[in-house]
Amino acid sequence: MCLVISGHYLQSNYGGRGVVIGGVVSVPPATAVIVGSGILAKSAIKALLGAGAHTIALGRNMEGLREIEDITAGRAVTLIASRYNLERMIQIADILIGAVLLPGERAPLMITREMVKKMQKGSVIIDLSIDQGGCIETSRLTTLEQPIYIEEGIIHYCVPNITSAVSRTSSKVLSNLVTTYLLQVGELGVDEALKQDATLSRGTYVYHGEMVRKSIAERFGLEYDKSFQS
Amino acid sequence: MCLVISGHYLQSNYGGRGVVIGGVVSVPPATAVIVGSGILAKSAIKALLGAGAHTIALGRNMEGLREIEDITAGRAVTLIASRYNLERMIQIADILIGAVLLPGERAPLMITREMVKKMQKGSVIIDLSIDQGGCIETSRLTTLEQPIYIEEGIIHYCVPNITSAVSRTSSKVLSNLVTTYLLQVGELGVDEALKQDATLSRGTYVYHGEMVRKSIAERFGLEYDKSFQS
Amino acid sequence: MCLVISGHYLQSNYGGRGVVIGGVVSVPPATAVIVGSGILAKSAIKALLGAGAHTIALGRNMEGLREIEDITAGRAVTLIASRYNLERMIQIADILIGAVLLPGERAPLMITREMVKKMQKGSVIIDLSIDQGGCIETSRLTTLEQPIYIEEGIIHYCVPNITSAVSRTSSKVLSNLVTTYLLQVGELGVDEALKQDATLSRGTYVYHGEMVRKSIAERFGLEYDKSFQS
Amino acid sequence: MCLVISGHYLQSNYGGRGVVIGGVVSVPPATAVIVGSGILAKSAIKALLGAGAHTIALGRNMEGLREIEDITAGRAVTLIASRYNLERMIQIADILIGAVLLPGERAPLMITREMVKKMQKGSVIIDLSIDQGGCIETSRLTTLEQPIYIEEGIIHYCVPNITSAVSRTSSKVLSNLVTTYLLQVGELGVDEALKQDATLSRGTYVYHGEMVRKSIAERFGLEYDKSFQS
Amino acid sequence: MCLVISGHYLQSNYGGRGVVIGGVVSVPPATAVIVGSGILAKSAIKALLGAGAHTIALGRNMEGLREIEDITAGRAVTLIASRYNLERMIQIADILIGAVLLPGERAPLMITREMVKKMQKGSVIIDLSIDQGGCIETSRLTTLEQPIYIEEGIIHYCVPNITSAVSRTSSKVLSNLVTTYLLQVGELGVDEALKQDATLSRGTYVYHGEMVRKSIAERFGLEYDKSFQS
Amino acid sequence: MCLVISGHYLQSNYGGRGVVIGGVVSVPPATAVIVGSGILAKSAIKALLGAGAHTIALGRNMEGLREIEDITAGRAVTLIASRYNLERMIQIADILIGAVLLPGERAPLMITREMVKKMQKGSVIIDLSIDQGGCIETSRLTTLEQPIYIEEGIIHYCVPNITSAVSRTSSKVLSNLVTTYLLQVGELGVDEALKQDATLSRGTYVYHGEMVRKSIAERFGLEYDKSFQS
Repeated sequence: MCLVISGHYLQSNYGGRGVVIGGVVSVPPATAVIVGSGILAKSAIKALLGAGAHTIALGRNMEGLREIEDITAGRAVTLIASRYNLERMIQIADILIGAVLLPGERAPLMITREMVKKMQKGSVIIDLSIDQGGCIETSRLTTLEQPIYIEEGIIHYCVPNITSAVSRTSSKVLSNLVTTYLLQVGELGVDEALKQDATLSRGTYVYHGEMVRKSIAERFGLEYDKSFQS
Repeated sequence: MCLVISGHYLQSNYGGRGVVIGGVVSVPPATAVIVGSGILAKSAIKALLGAGAHTIALGRNMEGLREIEDITAGRAVTLIASRYNLERMIQIADILIGAVLLPGERAPLMITREMVKKMQKGSVIIDLSIDQGGCIETSRLTTLEQPIYIEEGIIHYCVPNITSAVSRTSSKVLSNLVTTYLLQVGELGVDEALKQDATLSRGTYVYHGEMVRKSIAERFGLEYDKSFQS
Repeated sequence: MCLVISGHYLQSNYGGRGVVIGGVVSVPPATAVIVGSGILAKSAIKALLGAGAHTIALGRNMEGLREIEDITAGRAVTLIASRYNLERMIQIADILIGAVLLPGERAPLMITREMVKKMQKGSVIIDLSIDQGGCIETSRLTTLEQPIYIEEGIIHYCVPNITSAVSRTSSKVLSNLVTTYLLQVGELGVDEALKQDATLSRGTYVYHGEMVRKSIAERFGLEYDKSFQS
Repeated sequence: MCLVISGHYLQSNYGGRGVVIGGVVSVPPATAVIVGSGILAKSAIKALLGAGAHTIALGRNMEGLREIEDITAGRAVTLIASRYNLERMIQIADILIGAVLLPGERAPLMITREMVKKMQKGSVIIDLSIDQGGCIETSRLTTLEQPIYIEEGIIHYCVPNITSAVSRTSSKVLSNLVTTYLLQVGELGVDEALKQDATLSRGTYVYHGEMVRKSIAERFGLEYDKSFQS
Repeated sequence: MCLVISGHYLQSNYGGRGVVIGGVVSVPPATAVIVGSGILAKSAIKALLGAGAHTIALGRNMEGLREIEDITAGRAVTLIASRYNLERMIQIADILIGAVLLPGERAPLMITREMVKKMQKGSVIIDLSIDQGGCIETSRLTTLEQPIYIEEGIIHYCVPNITSAVSRTSSKVLSNLVTTYLLQVGELGVDEALKQDATLSRGTYVYHGEMVRKSIAERFGLEYDKSFQS
Repeated sequence: MCLVISGHYLQSNYGGRGVVIGGVVSVPPATAVIVGSGILAKSAIKALLGAGAHTIALGRNMEGLREIEDITAGRAVTLIASRYNLERMIQIADILIGAVLLPGERAPLMITREMVKKMQKGSVIIDLSIDQGGCIETSRLTTLEQPIYIEEGIIHYCVPNITSAVSRTSSKVLSNLVTTYLLQVGELGVDEALKQDATLSRGTYVYHGEMVRKSIAERFGLEYDKSFQS
């Protein structure tokens, strides 16, 4: 998705820098900077590399960066997401993808407004962590109907739940994923299924009418059932 | 460009089928059908294959298809662009690219309205030969401001001179191409340069105030200078 | 092995459909449908994709399918092995590989005779799970001497222990694998080796004259030593 | 085809060496030696490399070898087809492919019986130039019904017109190729078509009842029409 | 690094065999034999394969060899590191890399002087396990100032801590690695950090003035604190 | 060769920048700038890309750059070799390869001393066009015995006929190339061979005691036989 979105808004008629993502003869490719090293980041990196972008990944843990080195056969540049590196890299970015997620917590702020000000005008920011508050200071929620706004001269795309734009594909994948659990619950009963499958119990928020998830409970000041095991 | 355009309009919120181009776990990739086997077709095929689409190329000469086999290491399916094959293939297409160009002539009509009627609703047609009249019966000129319309339930994108949307990249490439000729003309003079470089003379339309290109002259009922050699 | 076997029997002179596995200019490649997502399935998928087949994997768990997506860089289509998907896919198969194995149990029946009836005549079925009863209703044991039979118009290859046909390679691999354990046993003694190496103890069937494997014991109505740890 | 044929006959139950073509953990791959550097050779090399064989190409001109280097990204070993190199290489071959063709002439004898004697027993020879007399001393015509014989301990497969075994694919390709010419002849008439298309005239053997091909005429002691231009 | 070092010393003017690592038209590539299947071995294998060498890995456990098969897509030949295989393989080696490391122990002796005597004169040995005593009988410590010596006609490169030759890159990587731990220790305190992070505690040699690492203590006949947990 | 030479001299102990060519986790790869787009340039580009360098090719004709795009699947950045681009690019280079050759003429000066002064200290220059006078102002002939010197803080490697360092490989290739001509001459006689083979006649400098090559004659003020056809 990141590839299509950034390619679309980089077009001059949408206010973008008017560059193609892949290199063409005698013109270098676009530079894509991805902040994060998790599943979202990896998937964006693979697509952008595949389209020929000069791709730079900045992450906070070496293990995540090593995996990126591996899956891209060393074709993505990897860097520690220090303030120094972030500042230098986003100045050469045509595309900036925020992809830092902490499970169950607010995304950390990685890119300040000051950094965004130094980006090239007409570049595109996609903040994939907007569902959890965003990791870029200038990003704020948008919708599929009104997906972008321009701030500091940069096009911001901050639609949460981005996969809803490809509803047919998403529905199929979700249904394939959910069916497995439904069959399991149907066969074993809810209690036994929760006991046998940690993924299922970790995904349980309310059980027998009781909130059972600590992080949610704390955010909303609710009680929760500490005896529930996940 | 085809990759970004088709990916964009396939999104459900733009009226598309709501599918991603590449396959994801448990869901097959989108099917892209490209009609043509020239430079435009090859470039679209490479991009769509790179993004993971199931890519089918239909061309009229075996030599062109053989080159497609070669550059895609056999990953694109190639077929003769017979009426029979065209009809079967576009029924399974999520993306249909018209890329048939005859130098200096109107593009031949390859896809009839009847065929388009049988396509899956919400699919995307990009007619790259629209500059020369289009090779699809339902396609008609659009603009970057109003790039698409829907006909027979299919999204049509028929912007001529598509590269103007990536103006920065296009300008650089064109200027790199043109500079070579300018330097040559500056060094040799116009007459000598035309004599030495067939590409230059073949690209000459008016010389010393006289029309020198037969195909243009005939289309507009003009005289032309037959003695000009290209 | 699947590649060579299916390529061989697809030849017209052996009763097959007379198609090559990889695509050639203007003719699409053969379609290979693999049922299963374990080690056997993956190895067949890699070989068939490598030879250029249009390769479709149907599995029952998302995790297995995700691994297939990864190792094939998304080039194999993956689908949930639902009845609906199986029925549709095997109708377009030139090659059908049954590769569903449950450790220590009978293979589940995935493909019914009704499905096989709808396959294209002259297609080839290889049932790799025949060692455990087969996952295709029409498959029954064959031998290297008489490796195939035709039923419902489909060529069935159901030789168990298929690797015995490449005896030289198999012997070397097995001897390399076994030697490791022999050296270990020689160094540590049997008891200590069983204690230290779970692979070794899980592979033990009879110990000090007592049956120690539950699944075998149950199938044959034998007693077994429950105290043996694996 | 070479891949499937050699993989099939290398199986121990068909008298072969009992090795798999690709390497498996702890056992090296089979060694395939291809003599020739033309279209047949290249196609065999690509398939065998794709399946993991250690692939060695011996050709007589450097240009052909350079193309093999290019299309295999240097993964095939290339050697000059000197007697010295041929002798050394076929001693380590599991598979030997003869693919030397001279257009319109008898294939040159490249591999003598003495060389074949030194090959490893149970190896497989496929002589693709058998249509033109074969390039291996021990090879003689076989048929699809009786495709192999064993001589000097080596399995020989010398079926001419090997593509007839995949009749469906071959028929489609041929018909796609021929249709182009038929349409051309229908549109222009025979005489004009022969004039405009050198491929067509080069493929003409008899014209207006007269033999027009020199090499055929000479072989059979016939007169031929020297005025026919091709 | 192995690629650059071996390529350098293989040049004739440094006493080497005068061969290039990758194959060129009509001349086979250099043969590189790597002994070991750990991280050092894998990294050398990837670089040498990438440069086009015929690459053979000899390891002692099947699991390591399987990983090498996987990461090289089967392009590296893998063999069990038996005496028989080692002897045969190093006779055809242009490059021999010793990469056998046992954590905290002396490297095992894998290659005897007798074997080295049979190597081709002018070949290059790099013993990466020299930091732990070396796995080749003829290898002894060298320095960056005097990196090689010739013994039995073979160029030996046995510089420990080889990465110091690329000091800029090494310093950055190390500092990126160490910073993570420093931040952790700063945040949690030493005791808590050691408790939470096994990697950190496993890397601790002296704690509160006491030796805590068994292998070091035993080698130097020291007492050590058995209560320290790692 | 460029890969091994630049990798060697980039080591800190030889005065280089102390960087590895390929990227490692958290550190970007070295940047290699290649000036030229001919055969030498392409071969250097392929090797450096293969080793993981960030590779930038600057050439003067678009056709050459297009071929580089093709053979590297767009992974090498291509730029017109304008003064502006050269100046910017060599400032970020760790490796600068001069590979501009004009057949039979002095190489043009592409990189001035002023440009070299702005390079990063400890970078490596390899001037492959030194045989024809060099394309870099600071480069002057060196030898295999004394292959480098440092000027403006940059390591210069300017050995002509670089392949003599891999004498064994070079001798084989040359002998394979020359033998073809010798056999031809032996078979046809010198005169007929020169007539039939343009490559042979173009490589002739003296014939029957007369100088026959114009460019050589002019450089040394000699007469030459204008009637000799090549």
